[in-house]
Amino acid sequence: MTYSVVKLNLPGGRGYDIRIGAGVNASLGEHIAALTPHRSVALIADSNVAPLYAADIAAGLESSGFAVAQFMFEAGEESKTISQAEELHAALSSFRFGRDSVVVALGGGVAGDLAGFVAATYMRGVPFVQVPTTLLSMIDSSVGGKNGVNVAGVKNLVGTFAQPIYVSADLDVLGTLPELEWRCGFAEMAKSAIIDSADFSAWLFDAAPALVAHEGDALREAVARTVAFKARVVVADERESSVRACLNYGHTLGHAIEAVADNPRVHHGIAVAEGMRFATTVAEDVLGTTPGFAEAQDQLLTVLGIEPMERRFDVDALVDKMVHDKKADGANVRFVLVKAPGDWELSTLEPDVVAGYVRKWMEAKER
Amino acid sequence: MTYSVVKLNLPGGRGYDIRIGAGVNASLGEHIAALTPHRSVALIADSNVAPLYAADIAAGLESSGFAVAQFMFEAGEESKTISQAEELHAALSSFRFGRDSVVVALGGGVAGDLAGFVAATYMRGVPFVQVPTTLLSMIDSSVGGKNGVNVAGVKNLVGTFAQPIYVSADLDVLGTLPELEWRCGFAEMAKSAIIDSADFSAWLFDAAPALVAHEGDALREAVARTVAFKARVVVADERESSVRACLNYGHTLGHAIEAVADNPRVHHGIAVAEGMRFATTVAEDVLGTTPGFAEAQDQLLTVLGIEPMERRFDVDALVDKMVHDKKADGANVRFVLVKAPGDWELSTLEPDVVAGYVRKWMEAKER
Repeated sequence: MTYSVVKLNLPGGRGYDIRIGAGVNASLGEHIAALTPHRSVALIADSNVAPLYAADIAAGLESSGFAVAQFMFEAGEESKTISQAEELHAALSSFRFGRDSVVVALGGGVAGDLAGFVAATYMRGVPFVQVPTTLLSMIDSSVGGKNGVNVAGVKNLVGTFAQPIYVSADLDVLGTLPELEWRCGFAEMAKSAIIDSADFSAWLFDAAPALVAHEGDALREAVARTVAFKARVVVADERESSVRACLNYGHTLGHAIEAVADNPRVHHGIAVAEGMRFATTVAEDVLGTTPGFAEAQDQLLTVLGIEPMERRFDVDALVDKMVHDKKADGANVRFVLVKAPGDWELSTLEPDVVAGYVRKWMEAKER
Repeated sequence: MTYSVVKLNLPGGRGYDIRIGAGVNASLGEHIAALTPHRSVALIADSNVAPLYAADIAAGLESSGFAVAQFMFEAGEESKTISQAEELHAALSSFRFGRDSVVVALGGGVAGDLAGFVAATYMRGVPFVQVPTTLLSMIDSSVGGKNGVNVAGVKNLVGTFAQPIYVSADLDVLGTLPELEWRCGFAEMAKSAIIDSADFSAWLFDAAPALVAHEGDALREAVARTVAFKARVVVADERESSVRACLNYGHTLGHAIEAVADNPRVHHGIAVAEGMRFATTVAEDVLGTTPGFAEAQDQLLTVLGIEPMERRFDVDALVDKMVHDKKADGANVRFVLVKAPGDWELSTLEPDVVAGYVRKWMEAKER
């Protein structure tokens, strides 16, 4: 079996491995056992993923000497609430889980965010393992230690920074992933590559045909490169006080699109890809970009199967969400702007200026 | 103005000062301003304390350049819930508090535990300041970074370790403290002194008359010594994986008494003092104690105004709570046992053995 291991090295012995490859979940128990003396596992999965994989994961853990209790919650972003977290806290308590327990999150971003929050706050914190089952969560949310639940209509208003002790990214589970979820993952890879370097961007462009064909080796390397990039960023700025902001490339418009588009909703990766395209028109005007960069980014997204969005949105509604999203930073909107692969900066623009750019962006779609 | 400053030095720049003295709250704004560039304060207080002190604290902060919004919750342990925390999260959000905010907890242990949890989880953590208003919270819960709320009937089932950036222990606010609360604080001092050393124990015995008379200098020094002891323990073992367990001296029976006695309830400090007396009878039998230690501890508690408890409890109910309390440590009960001041160890006893000691303890009260 071929696999890749990315090491995320944090001070205070809080580093951890992200193991990536087809079949790596088979060694989950062995790896957790090597990391902690605890032998009780609370396996938390959503109602979509649990029927597919929870029994196998539990059996594997049991064969490594763990006592496993399974907890399931309703799949979907609607489960990322404090009361759902409290239900899980109470369930763990009723099963007599103590501080000497390990929480394993099995699922996509919602499972990781919710179970991560539960683990970080149960008895003031128990060790936590991520077993992501979507491409996007493998390369993004399972790495870096953010967790959260939504409160008062604000995404991730409540949460902590709490690093997992291990991440197992088994590419075999992607066999059941819908096509749209694949594209969301590819968009995240493109975002990472462009923020990171010309090298990674060129590699990803070349690998794109193999990736869209879901070829195993290309996929493993693409996941490993993206995770390694994220790990470098997290190590440089664990608590998002400086450079970690680069990970929000494409997110300013992207989050606004997600917030405005409710029926049908727009998936995160797709919205971010559109946000990257938009940010580049802003960057061209505000910073000046390297000749050919906008086209190169456009082509990279297109070969990865992510076309420019046809759909239109109300400009005022988008700008309103962008102003609201930035939270307590005066009244201005923050953008990650990229001049060329690997060369980004943080810019702050006034709402009126942003509205002008968004209007032009929407008008261009009419032509 | 005379004050004492205890420095709690933690790795990673997370150390902080605990300032102790009459009137130190007057310099609260100045000290917070020196620690963080943030200038928005969410002042969280309970409904007993807010009317007495919140306006003054807010005015002081405002005169140091802070914008202050006040949040109040119903006084009492019943407010230490996840839903109360969520209400505060939502209230902070509706006031547009961002990551660039500071949460100030004003009150006793409940305010510190609840507001500390809110601060630790709001937007993945904002800086937090403790302004304790009871003697017990000044010397115990405001120092050390534990927070928590009660879930599923389990005290502090949910919480985090998150250190404050500053603690302001203003002895002037103790003027409104009921006599019983004073004794709870004195019991905590006695616990700390006995765990710490013969020196501290002897000093506390000599200072007791001045303390029960609420004399300012003796009080400041006693608070400072107790806080310094706690700071040493927290620095040695921040996340309670080893020596921090010593702080639970007297808590095994103490917690059980608190859980069993509902009408009237027994205050924490008083229950712990009784637990210390009980633990010493156990220690005499299990370890052997230094001749005269039990009597010396008894006298120390007595001169501090804490007499042996007259009240009887059901032995089985107490033992049941003790077995439940220890959480996932097999079926045994853990005790901190003291042989002599400064000389303690952790012991694990079987429930039957514990029941025997508790029965003898209760029977001795009949004589």
